[in-house]
Amino acid sequence: MAEDPEAHSSTHRVEAFSDGVFAIAITLLIIEIAVPHVEGDQSLGEAISDLWPSYFAYALSFITIGIYWANHHSFFQLFRRLDHFFLMFNVLFLMCISFLPFPTAVLADYLDNSDQRGDAVTFYCFGLLLPATAWLALWTYGRWRDLLADGLDPAYVRFATWQYIGSSGVYILAVVASLINPWAGIAMAASITGAYLLPPREPKYIEHQH
Amino acid sequence: MAEDPEAHSSTHRVEAFSDGVFAIAITLLIIEIAVPHVEGDQSLGEAISDLWPSYFAYALSFITIGIYWANHHSFFQLFRRLDHFFLMFNVLFLMCISFLPFPTAVLADYLDNSDQRGDAVTFYCFGLLLPATAWLALWTYGRWRDLLADGLDPAYVRFATWQYIGSSGVYILAVVASLINPWAGIAMAASITGAYLLPPREPKYIEHQH
Amino acid sequence: MAEDPEAHSSTHRVEAFSDGVFAIAITLLIIEIAVPHVEGDQSLGEAISDLWPSYFAYALSFITIGIYWANHHSFFQLFRRLDHFFLMFNVLFLMCISFLPFPTAVLADYLDNSDQRGDAVTFYCFGLLLPATAWLALWTYGRWRDLLADGLDPAYVRFATWQYIGSSGVYILAVVASLINPWAGIAMAASITGAYLLPPREPKYIEHQH
Amino acid sequence: MAEDPEAHSSTHRVEAFSDGVFAIAITLLIIEIAVPHVEGDQSLGEAISDLWPSYFAYALSFITIGIYWANHHSFFQLFRRLDHFFLMFNVLFLMCISFLPFPTAVLADYLDNSDQRGDAVTFYCFGLLLPATAWLALWTYGRWRDLLADGLDPAYVRFATWQYIGSSGVYILAVVASLINPWAGIAMAASITGAYLLPPREPKYIEHQH
Repeated sequence: MAEDPEAHSSTHRVEAFSDGVFAIAITLLIIEIAVPHVEGDQSLGEAISDLWPSYFAYALSFITIGIYWANHHSFFQLFRRLDHFFLMFNVLFLMCISFLPFPTAVLADYLDNSDQRGDAVTFYCFGLLLPATAWLALWTYGRWRDLLADGLDPAYVRFATWQYIGSSGVYILAVVASLINPWAGIAMAASITGAYLLPPREPKYIEHQH
Repeated sequence: MAEDPEAHSSTHRVEAFSDGVFAIAITLLIIEIAVPHVEGDQSLGEAISDLWPSYFAYALSFITIGIYWANHHSFFQLFRRLDHFFLMFNVLFLMCISFLPFPTAVLADYLDNSDQRGDAVTFYCFGLLLPATAWLALWTYGRWRDLLADGLDPAYVRFATWQYIGSSGVYILAVVASLINPWAGIAMAASITGAYLLPPREPKYIEHQH
Repeated sequence: MAEDPEAHSSTHRVEAFSDGVFAIAITLLIIEIAVPHVEGDQSLGEAISDLWPSYFAYALSFITIGIYWANHHSFFQLFRRLDHFFLMFNVLFLMCISFLPFPTAVLADYLDNSDQRGDAVTFYCFGLLLPATAWLALWTYGRWRDLLADGLDPAYVRFATWQYIGSSGVYILAVVASLINPWAGIAMAASITGAYLLPPREPKYIEHQH
Repeated sequence: MAEDPEAHSSTHRVEAFSDGVFAIAITLLIIEIAVPHVEGDQSLGEAISDLWPSYFAYALSFITIGIYWANHHSFFQLFRRLDHFFLMFNVLFLMCISFLPFPTAVLADYLDNSDQRGDAVTFYCFGLLLPATAWLALWTYGRWRDLLADGLDPAYVRFATWQYIGSSGVYILAVVASLINPWAGIAMAASITGAYLLPPREPKYIEHQH
C-alpha cells in the first residue's frame, strides 16, 4: 500500500471535515422534535407518548448516520490518493447525509397519519437512497480513476462493489414497497440499518510486484 | 498498559467524533429558548425574567453534558482496544446525549406549570437516565469482551462498576421521586450533577507479568 | 517556502476552526426547510414536490460552501505566516459564510413567488457576493503585509488576484442582472459555482535566493 | 516554561472541544434571523431592509465570539497545567458563550421597538458581561492554584489581571448606561469589541532558576 505524506494529510483533512458534517447532521435530528403543546385535558405525559413516531424516526436516522460515519472512515483507508473530483463527489455525498434530518422530520410528523403515511415513508426511503447512491458513485469514480490502494485484493473490490450496489438496490426496493405498503418500506429500511450493525468484512491486501 | 498505534489512532478518531457530538448537543440547548413575545403592558424585562425555568434547565443540562464530555475522555483511556460493537454502543450512548435538548426543552416549558410539572420532571429525569444506562452498557460490554487496559487495578474496576450502577440507580430513584414530588426529582437530578463536579477518582494500574 | 513550526501550528488551528464553521454552516442549511403542513385534499407527496425551490437553494448553497471549504485549505497553504489582522479578516470571511443560510432560506421561500422573486434573487446574489469580497480582502491584505510564502510564482499571484476580482465582479453582475431578470441572476450565480467545480490551477513556486 | 507531554495533550483536547463550542455558537447566530413574512403591499426588499437590527446584532455577536475564540487560544498557552476545577470553570465559561445567541436574538427583535429597546439592550449587555466574568474567574482560579506557566513575567500577569477586571467593569458600566440610554449601552458594548480587534499585548517570559 503505497502512500505519500501529503496524500495522507489531505485524506486526514477531508475526513475531519466529513466527521464534522456527520456529527452535526446526527445531532440536528433532535431539533426537529418540537415540544408538544398540551391542550384540553390531555396530560403532558400522553402528549410525550404520542410522539413515538418522532422517537422512532430519530433513532433510525441516528443509527443509520452513525453507521455511515464508522464506514466512511474505513472506506477512505481504501484509497491511495484523492483527486479534485473525488472531493467534489464526497461533498455531494455529504449533501445527501445533511439532507436526512428533513425526510426524518417528515416521517416523524406523518407516520401516525394513515392518509399521508405512504407518501412520508416513500420520501424517507428515497432520502436514504440518496446517500447510498452517492456512496456508490464515489466508489465507482475512485475505481475508474484508479485511486484505490495498491494491492487491494480484487476479490474484496468485487465484494465491495456488489455490496454498495446491493444497498442502493434494497433502498430502491424499499421505495417501491412503500408505494404498496408503508410498513413494508419502513421494515426494509430498518433492516438494512440493522444488517450494517454487524461487523463489516475486513479489506484484504495482496503482495504485489513493481 | 499495552497499546498499539492503530488502536490509538482508532480511539482518537472515535473521541474526536464523540467530542463533536458533545459540543453540538451542548450548544444546541440554547436554540430551545425562544425570544419572548411581549403582550399587553408586560415589559420585556419581566418576560425575560419569567423564563427562569429555561435558564435553569439550560444550565443543568449544559453542566451535565459538560461533565459527561470530561469523563468520556478519561473513560476511553481505560480501554486497550475498541471493537466494532463497542463503537456501536458508543453511537447508542451519543444518541442518548443528543436526545437531551428535547427533555430539557420540555422541562423549560412546563416547570412553571403546576398541572404538568410532574410529567415534565419525570420525562427529564428519564432523559438523564438514558445516557447513564448507555454508559453502564458500554462499560459492561467492554469488561465482558476484555477490552480493558492490561494492569488496570481490579479494585478500580469494581469501584467504577459500582459508581456507574449507582448513577443509573439514583436517576431511577429520581424518576420515581418525581412521580411523588416533582421538586424532589429535580433536586436529585441536580445533586448527581453536583456530585460529579468533584474531582473523579484516578484509575490505578498495577504491575503485571507477561 | 520558508516555514516555522509555530506558524504551522497557528495555521492549523485557524483552519480547524474555519472547517468547523464551514461544516456547521453547510449542515444548518437543511434546518431552514420546514416540514410542509398538508391542507385540504393536497397530498403530502405534492406538498413535498412543491418545495423544489428549497431543494434547489439547498443544493446550490451546499455546493458553493463545499467549494469554499476545499479552496480555503489550498488558500491557507499560500501563506508563510498569519498576523493578528489576517485572523480578524478571516473571522469576517467566516461571518459571511455563516450568513449564507439566511439568504438561502429567503430564496427558498420566495423563488416560486412571481411578485417577490426579484428581491429574493437579488438578496441571494448579494449574499454570495459577501464572502467573495471578504476572500478578496483577505488576499489583498495578505499581499499588502507580505505574508505570502517565499518563492510563490508572481505569475500565479497575478492570476489569483484576477481570479478573486473576477469572482466578485461576476457576483456584482449577477446582482445587477437579477434586477432585470431574476432567472438571469440565478443562472449567473449557479454558473460561478459550476465553474469552481473544475480543478483549480495549482500554485507554482520558483527557486529563490537567500 | 516547563511543560509535560500529558499536560500538553490534555490542553489540546480542551481547546479542541472549546473551539467546537465557539464554532457552533458563532454559526448558530444566523438561525435566530427568521425569513420575513411579507404582508400587504410591502415588498420583500423592504422587509429584508427592516431586519437591520438583526444584521447589526448578528455582526456584533459574531465578531465578539470570534475575538473570544482567538484570545482563548493565547490564554490557554499561559498555563502550565490544568486541573479538574479549571476544566469545570472552562465549561462554565463555554456555557456563557453558548448562551449569547439568545440575548442576541432578543436584541435583534426589540432594538427597533422604542418601548422595549431599553430592556433588550440591558439584557444583551448583561449577556456579554457573563463570559467576561467567567473568563476573569478562570484566570483568578488559575492564579490562585498556581497553574500559570513558570517564568511568566509578573508585570504581564498584573497587566492581564487588570485587563480582565477592566473588561468586566466596562460591561457593568454598559449595563448601567443602558438603563439611562439604550444607545449608550450598545455603544459601550460595541466599543469593547472594537478595542479587542487591535492586536493583544504579547505575554513575556523571564528566565528562572530551578
